[in-house]
Amino acid sequence: MGIYAIIMAGGVGKRFWPLSRKRKPKQFLPIVSEKTMLEETIERILPLIPYERIYTVANAEFSNEIYKLVPNLPEKNLIVEPSAKNTAPSLLLATARISSEDSDATIVALPSDHYIRDKNRFNKVLNACLKMAQTGEYIITIGIEPSYPATGYGYIHYSPKQTFEAEGMKFYWVEEFKEKPNLEEAIKYLAEREYFWNSGIFIWNVKSFSEKLKKYTPELHADYIALYEALEKNEKEKAIEIFQKFPSTSIDYALMEKAKGILVIKGDFGWSDVGSWSSLAEILPRDKEGNVIKGDVILMDSKNCIVYNPNIFTSLIGVKDIIVIYANNALLICNKKYDQKIKELVEKLEKENRKEYL
Amino acid sequence: MGIYAIIMAGGVGKRFWPLSRKRKPKQFLPIVSEKTMLEETIERILPLIPYERIYTVANAEFSNEIYKLVPNLPEKNLIVEPSAKNTAPSLLLATARISSEDSDATIVALPSDHYIRDKNRFNKVLNACLKMAQTGEYIITIGIEPSYPATGYGYIHYSPKQTFEAEGMKFYWVEEFKEKPNLEEAIKYLAEREYFWNSGIFIWNVKSFSEKLKKYTPELHADYIALYEALEKNEKEKAIEIFQKFPSTSIDYALMEKAKGILVIKGDFGWSDVGSWSSLAEILPRDKEGNVIKGDVILMDSKNCIVYNPNIFTSLIGVKDIIVIYANNALLICNKKYDQKIKELVEKLEKENRKEYL
Repeated sequence: MGIYAIIMAGGVGKRFWPLSRKRKPKQFLPIVSEKTMLEETIERILPLIPYERIYTVANAEFSNEIYKLVPNLPEKNLIVEPSAKNTAPSLLLATARISSEDSDATIVALPSDHYIRDKNRFNKVLNACLKMAQTGEYIITIGIEPSYPATGYGYIHYSPKQTFEAEGMKFYWVEEFKEKPNLEEAIKYLAEREYFWNSGIFIWNVKSFSEKLKKYTPELHADYIALYEALEKNEKEKAIEIFQKFPSTSIDYALMEKAKGILVIKGDFGWSDVGSWSSLAEILPRDKEGNVIKGDVILMDSKNCIVYNPNIFTSLIGVKDIIVIYANNALLICNKKYDQKIKELVEKLEKENRKEYL
Repeated sequence: MGIYAIIMAGGVGKRFWPLSRKRKPKQFLPIVSEKTMLEETIERILPLIPYERIYTVANAEFSNEIYKLVPNLPEKNLIVEPSAKNTAPSLLLATARISSEDSDATIVALPSDHYIRDKNRFNKVLNACLKMAQTGEYIITIGIEPSYPATGYGYIHYSPKQTFEAEGMKFYWVEEFKEKPNLEEAIKYLAEREYFWNSGIFIWNVKSFSEKLKKYTPELHADYIALYEALEKNEKEKAIEIFQKFPSTSIDYALMEKAKGILVIKGDFGWSDVGSWSSLAEILPRDKEGNVIKGDVILMDSKNCIVYNPNIFTSLIGVKDIIVIYANNALLICNKKYDQKIKELVEKLEKENRKEYL
C-alpha cells in the first residue's frame, strides 16, 4: 500500500553544453536554482514520499553522483541500469524492483530534470493522482496545457467531455498519445483545445501496471514477469540478461500509446522541461531588455540575450537573441533560434574525439 | 642633411579592448602579424632610415615599453612627452629636438600603429617625398585614395590639375585640409574625386617646418623657437614649461589647415589605420564565409564574424557580423556595426574605476 517514486536520472542532456558534460548532464547542474535539478526534484516530493521510498534509476556512474549529491537516499534505492536504454526498460526494471518489495506499491515515475514553479500545487495534483492510482484501476499521467505549438513535446489527446471529479480534481480519459508533431499538426492541436503536452510524469499501482502490460503488450509483460521473478530470487545475472533484451523505447511508445483506460489530469503548477538554454531563459528572471544574466556582465544596446559566465567579466554591445555561455573549458556563442544545433555541435565534438570538451 | 623619422607612439587606442589596455594600446600589440605594429612601423622604414635616426615620441611609460621592444633604438631617441597633448605638441617637441642636433634635418612624421600592405611601394613613395622635402621648400603629406565615404578620417582636397612630376612621382598641391566630414559630405568628396584621406604621414625639412610655422601660425612659432633654444641649452625644466603651454591640438589643425604650399602624393601602397576590430578584419585572411579567426574555433552557420580567442575553445552557431574577443581577463561580444561603441564601454569602465579591465 506504500507510495513510491521512481526518478529517471539517466538522461545525457547535450543541449546545455558547454555547461553540461557527459559526466554532468542537466539533472546534476544547478541551473534554475542554487540546487541541482535532481535535488529540486527529490525535495519537491518529500512532503508526499519519504527518502526511504524514493528510487532513482540511472547508470552506475550517475548513481554514484546521486549518492554523493543526496546522501539521504538509501543506497539500495539507487537502481543501476546495466545499460542506457530509454524510459521503458528503466521503468520496467524499477517497477519490478519496487513490486518485489511491496506487491501493492503505488508509484510516481518522473523525470529528474524538469522545472516546476508551484511546488504546493504540484503535490496537490500528484496526491490526487496517487490516491486514484491506489485503487489499482488506472494508469494516470499529468498533462500540461500547451501555451504555444511546440514541436518538441509529445501530446496527449484527451476527451474534454468524458471527465470525472475525484479527490477534488478533474480527470480526463486519454484518447490517444501523440508523438512529437510537426508545426502544422501542433498548431491544429493547439486550436482544438483537446490536447495536453506530455509531461513524462506517470502514476500507477504495480497491479494496474502489470495488468495493462499484460493486456496491451503481452510479450513485454512476459519479460517483465521474468524480470520480477529474477529480482525476487536475487538472480542478478538473469535480471541483467532480461533487461538487455528490452527494446530501447520510451514508456510512451512501449505502453501508453497502446493501452486503453488511461487518465490524464491537468498539471496547472507551472512546468518546463528546461530543454534548452532558450527555455531556461523563459523561467529565469530577466532584466528590462529581456536579458538573462549570470556573472559580471555589462550590456549596451543588447536585448533578449542569455549570458552565463560566472568566471569572466563579459560585455555585450549591440547584439540580440544571442546565447553566450562560458563554462568549464569552452565558450559558446549561439543564436537563440539555433539552440537546437548545440546538440549537433556536441556530436561533432564526439566524432572528432575531442574528449576534453565532452 | 640627414633623414630622420618621428614615430608617434603616444596613442591610447580603446577600440581594441579587451585586447588593448591602457598600458598596452594598439601599437604594442601584434594584431596584424606576429610582430607589434610599432615594430612593423620601424622595420618598414629601415631601408631608408637607420635606427640611429629613428625617434619616437610617447609618454615615459610607453617609452619604456618601446625600449624593451626595440632595443636597437638609441635610448636618447625615445623622446618623452611631459604629458599627452595630441600630435601638434609631440611633433613640435620632436622636430625641435632633431633640429637641435641637425639644423638641416629632413623628417618623416608617422603614426606607429597603421598597416601598410606593400612595404616596397611605401618606401618608394616615402623616398620621393623625402627627396622633395630635402629641398627645404615644401611640407609634403601622403594621401590615400578613398574607397568608401568614410566619416572617420580627415580629408585632403587637392588640385588635380596643378600637379608636377618629381622623383618619378606625381605631386599635387593641397587646396585644403578637411576635418572628419559627415556622411553627406563624405559622399560628395568621394564623387568629386579631388580628395584623399589624410594618412597622418607628413614629411618636412626642419627649415621648411619652421618657416611655415612662422608664416601661418607665428605665435606657435615663437614657442617653437623658445623650445628649440631650451633644448639647445639643455634647459629641461624650461622645455617642459613651454611644452605644457602648447595647445592640445593636432598638427593638422595647428599648422596644415592654415598653411599654403603643401604638397600631397598618392599613397598607393595599401593602407589602413586599423581603427577598429572591423577594419582589422578587412586586412586579415578570411574563410569562405568571411570569418576571421584566431584560436581553436568551430563555426556552424556563422558568417562574417571575428573571433580572437587564442586561449579558450570557442564555438559559434548561427551568428553573423559578430565580434568575439576574449583577451586578458575580459570577454567582449559585439555587433560589428556597433564596434565604435567599444570606446564608450571602456569609458564606462573608467568611470566605474574598474581598473582590472582597463
